[in-house]
Parts: sequence; structure tokens; C-alpha cells
Amino acid sequence: MNEANVNALWSSITRPTLVVDEQRARRNIARMAAKARASGVRFRPHFKTHQSAALGEWFRAEGVTAITVSSMTMAAYFADCGWDDITIAFPVNWREIDLINTLAARVRLGLLLDSVESARFLAARLEYPADAWLDVDTGYHRTGVDWQDDATAAEIAAALVGSRLTLRGLLTHAGHSYNARTRDEVYTVYVETVTRLAHLRDHLATVGYADLALSIGDTPCCAMVEDLRAVDEIRPGNFPYFDLMQVEIGSCTLDEVAAVVACPIVSLYPARGQVVIYGGGVHLSKESIHDHLGRKSFGAIALPTDDGWEVLPESSYACSLSQEHGVLQVGTTVLDRFRVGDLALVLPVHSCMSADLLKGGLLLPSGHRFTMMPYG
Amino acid sequence: MNEANVNALWSSITRPTLVVDEQRARRNIARMAAKARASGVRFRPHFKTHQSAALGEWFRAEGVTAITVSSMTMAAYFADCGWDDITIAFPVNWREIDLINTLAARVRLGLLLDSVESARFLAARLEYPADAWLDVDTGYHRTGVDWQDDATAAEIAAALVGSRLTLRGLLTHAGHSYNARTRDEVYTVYVETVTRLAHLRDHLATVGYADLALSIGDTPCCAMVEDLRAVDEIRPGNFPYFDLMQVEIGSCTLDEVAAVVACPIVSLYPARGQVVIYGGGVHLSKESIHDHLGRKSFGAIALPTDDGWEVLPESSYACSLSQEHGVLQVGTTVLDRFRVGDLALVLPVHSCMSADLLKGGLLLPSGHRFTMMPYG
Repeated sequence: MNEANVNALWSSITRPTLVVDEQRARRNIARMAAKARASGVRFRPHFKTHQSAALGEWFRAEGVTAITVSSMTMAAYFADCGWDDITIAFPVNWREIDLINTLAARVRLGLLLDSVESARFLAARLEYPADAWLDVDTGYHRTGVDWQDDATAAEIAAALVGSRLTLRGLLTHAGHSYNARTRDEVYTVYVETVTRLAHLRDHLATVGYADLALSIGDTPCCAMVEDLRAVDEIRPGNFPYFDLMQVEIGSCTLDEVAAVVACPIVSLYPARGQVVIYGGGVHLSKESIHDHLGRKSFGAIALPTDDGWEVLPESSYACSLSQEHGVLQVGTTVLDRFRVGDLALVLPVHSCMSADLLKGGLLLPSGHRFTMMPYG
Repeated sequence: MNEANVNALWSSITRPTLVVDEQRARRNIARMAAKARASGVRFRPHFKTHQSAALGEWFRAEGVTAITVSSMTMAAYFADCGWDDITIAFPVNWREIDLINTLAARVRLGLLLDSVESARFLAARLEYPADAWLDVDTGYHRTGVDWQDDATAAEIAAALVGSRLTLRGLLTHAGHSYNARTRDEVYTVYVETVTRLAHLRDHLATVGYADLALSIGDTPCCAMVEDLRAVDEIRPGNFPYFDLMQVEIGSCTLDEVAAVVACPIVSLYPARGQVVIYGGGVHLSKESIHDHLGRKSFGAIALPTDDGWEVLPESSYACSLSQEHGVLQVGTTVLDRFRVGDLALVLPVHSCMSADLLKGGLLLPSGHRFTMMPYG
């Protein structure tokens, strides 16, 4: 029985606190690892979501040896945790060249290039061998060489010849999969992404750059496409925790969300059906979604139970956030379950942002059970 | 000459960094302090914006001895910095009663009550004398007893009789002033706010609770209303830094904004008129505004100069943020001034959020000059 442990955990919380369900998170990790094995692709999970040495060990337990991060600061942190194969999936920041060299001396570093000038900069300034990845824009239009721009891609590849950098492959983040709301829409993004990557890879092969790998990273595609054999590497990050945005997209179910922010209830406003919590933008982030009911939501609401949490029907949601205050719109049938001094739990819109704000966090003891209510 | 110092500061920045113009911030503080003196009201600035001991000293230099914070954590931090008169302008969080008692034993603590149950809780559990403030909802509808709800207000006051709490006054946050876009609209909110507070104060006087003070806190009213004599205390927080939201409201001009986030430029996308910076939601926050041009903006853009920064015309703005990436839409006439490896500066939408994310930060040497370009 873990009820005593779980209740002790809830009782210990005095301020907004990230609570991670270890059992669910490990299950999410194991499922993605198994899919990567079945597809024969390298699993290089993105660690920006959790930024946690402890979580990293759950990946190691699934055989993961290579990781992705989005800053040199994170790369240095995980190198210190013993990770020695790290891709920084963010365009090279010239101003951190000293740290890049320090890390390249210690670990196998993968660096992302989206311009000829950055390729030349690194070719001139890098003092140790490293892997290079060509950042390709397959439609998201954030960073990356346009997938049709064969000339620039070849120029970047050429700039690396004779340098300490070895071009390993083509990397993209198909962030526009976050606009999808069905499995078919996600699948369409996936097919378009790999087709475009393959087009550029095949062109580079014709001009002398052979054997380049393809790497994708967005959680919706990695979670919802069953057979990933068209690529060589996947770098999803969000899936250990998932969040409300992934539920909206369809990447996961509500009972796969493994992280909540536990917030003390400070006020009840029954006349307007609202509950005020200690838990605002500095804890949850100001990330919001327009959910399928057309509401601007800052999170779904759950209540603590003896063995985890119970998600409330979606008539309850976080409707506004200030710096420290959160306002929950609460359905009339559950309003009397909220009491000042108790905890309300918020399933965040974007767990990466909340986890960044609330680094650390508490773990629910593994082995507990859950009672789930349907969402809707 | 401070040019060498300023340039050395810009050169030292390798990652997203909050840069505060000390001269401007001190001027903003001095102006608000002078206005409070002229109006004969107590100046109890909110320290949630900066959360910084160093900034606190700039207030002390203006004669400030009493402060406001929004969490017990901040109260404990500033008590350790020698502040001994602290109001927590956030409904009492029962789960932190131990910390409340620890602090009440050390400093003059002001606690905020918005319900009879919290009043009874504190009356029963508080072990040292403290001040109580009645949280009044004058129209913002976040927290507070409705200004027309005389009965609940009197019940809260009655619950404190005989306890260690002394009711000092009525406190409100007229956060709806953030919806104003002209001085007249802000003034209308102010007049309504003080009228409603005074109504409730006068009622409480008739039932035996006399000499209660009135306290307001929103930066737009405190910055834009000249004569504040209708209240007894002001608690603005945002004004030392100001930000783009305050510019939009009209609380300040662009050349009064005293904090920027300096971000390395990592990519140029001239074909789409965009620049990608290392600086995303974990640095700037995901706070956005719909500006007067109808755009969703995550910040205005400036470039470093020898003696400060130069704000670019508003055709340049931060148009999207991911966790670590920022995308700037840049006007064609200034695009060639952005270079990979240089810094771009973002004037944040909400400086409280950015300062919370980037605690610490660098100070521009005081005594530098600025060259400003018009915004628009």
C-alpha cells in the first residue's frame, strides 16, 4: 500500500510544486523506446522538457545513450551527469564558442548549422572533432535551410570539408505538427517532412555527400506515427510528461499525462464559480491554448487522491493567470470539493515550460493506483 | 566616458541576459517617490517585479521603508535583506502558516484577507501580532470581497477582534486598468476604484471599524494619475523597469523602459524578413500583447549602442517564441544591421515575468547617454 506515502507527499506541499508520476513517466519512456527499437531508429530523446539528472536515469534504464538538448547550458549540465553523446538542437550560438570547445573536448557533440556563415565560423573556431547536422526547414519556418535550397545546403556541407566537423545528417523540427488535431493530420505532416528531408538528402548524395542520416523531433509525429523507418533518428522531448496541448493534438490520453503542478487553494468565489490558487505565470508559464471548446485555457484541473490524482470534467479549467495567482473556472457539480487550504492540481498546457519554471519537483511513489474520470 | 564600460558589458554577454539601465530605473523610482510625497501617501512599492536586494537599495535611497511582495518566499528573502515592514499582497496561504509565524515574529507583517474563513484561520493560528488588510474587489474580479458586500467585510473585521491581527485598511488591485489605452480611461478606473473603496470604508466606520486606510497598487493608475490624495498608500511594482505593456497603456514612454533582455543573434532569414535569437519563452516568458497595430507581439526590438540602446521603429517586433528560440520580424530598412553573433535586445511585454525568469541580470553603468529613435 502506498496510500500513506502519497498522502504524505500531498501534505508536504506548501507552494506551487511540480509533481511527477514516476510510473506513468517511465511507461511513456518505455513505450517510445520500444517503438524506436521496432522501427530500427536511433532514440535520442530531447532533455529540454525535464532538464533533470534523475529523469535522465529513467532513460538510461531503457538503453538510451545519446541525448538532445537545446542550449549549451543544458549540454554542460548533462555532460556533468555522465552523458557523452549530446546533440544541441539549436543553431550554433557564436558567443558560446569557448563552452562549445570545452564540451567538444569532453563528449561527442552534435552541432546544428543553418547557415553558411555559421558553418565557416565553426570550421575556423572549433578546436576538437564534432558532428554537424544540417538544420532543414521542412515547413515550420522557424530555423533551417529551406528543403528546396539545394545550393545553400551543399555550400554548408562544402564549408565543413577539411574542418574538425563531420556532417552526419539532416535534422528538422516539424513544429507545425502542433497545429494538427487528428492522427491523419499528424501523419500528413510526417509524410511531408520525411519526403522533403529525403529529397534534400538525395540531392546532397549526388554532389558527393553520401550516407547522411535523417533526424526528426516533434512529439506529435513521434508519438502518433507507428512506423518510423523512413528516418534514422527521433528526438522527441515532451512525451515523458505529456501535457494538455498533447491531449488536444491527440498524442496522448489524459491518463498518460505524468506531471501536474500542485497549487494551494487560497480563495473560493462560488458566486462566479471560481477558485483562486497560489500558482500563476511564474509557475505554470503564460502558455495557453484555445481548446476544442473554444476557450483560452491555461490548464486542466485535477484533485489529489489517496493514490494519485483525479482529473475533473473539462467544465473545470484554469481560465486566467497573473504572476502568482491562478483563477480556476470550476463546474458547479464539483465546486464543493474545493476548500481553502487544500491543493488543486493543474495539468499544464505545456509541461516543458512548467518544468523549466519549477525545476526539481516531487515524485509520486511508484506502484500507486489511479482512479480516472473521463475528460468531457 | 562610459563607452568602454558599456561595450565591455555587451561583449560579456553570451546567453539571454536581463540588462537594467540603472540611471533610468533610479529616475523612475525617484519620480514615483516624489509623487507619493507630494500626495502625502505612503509609498509601499511592490518588489515582485525585480525580486532583487540590489534594486531594493535604490528604493531605500529614496526614503522607502515599507514594501509589498506577493509570496511568503519573497517576504522571507527581503526580511533577510533587512526590510522590516512587509505586506504580502496575496490571499493568505494556509499551508505556509509556519513561515508566516516565523516572519511575524521578526518583522511587521501585513496579511491579506479575502474571506471569513481565512480571517478565522489566522485569528486562531497566528502567534505574533500582525497587520491585516481587507482585500476588496473594486471591479477586477480576481480576488477580494465585493466592494458592495458590506456584510462579509464586517464579518471579516469582526473575526479579527481579540486576535493578534489589527485591521489596518482596505487594499485593492485594480488590474483592469491594464485594459485602458488612454490617460482618461486610466483616470476613470482610478476614480471608480477609490469611490468604491471609500464606500466600503465609510460603511465599516459606521459599524465600529474606524480609521481604516485605503491602498491601491496598479502601476497604470499610480503612474498616470497626478494627485493620489484620495488614498493613503500606493503599492506599484512594475514602474522601475516599465515594459511594452505599460508603453501601450500610456504609463510610460519607450525611453523610460529601463530593462531589456539581451539575446545572441543566431540566424538571419532575410527572405522572410526575420532574425532568430537565442531568447525564448523561458527567458522572456510567453506573455504577449495585441499591440495598437493589431499584432500579437512578444516584445519590441532594440540594438546595443556605445552608450545604451536604440529602440528600432515598431515595424520590428518579436513575433513568436519557442522554449529557447525567439523570432523577430524585422523592418527591411534595418535588416542589414542584424548580424549572426551580435546581440539583439528585446523590450519585454511584461518585465515582471522576464525579471522573474532571469533573476540577477547586469546593470548598465550609470552616467551613460542614450540615443533614442521614435517608436513608430
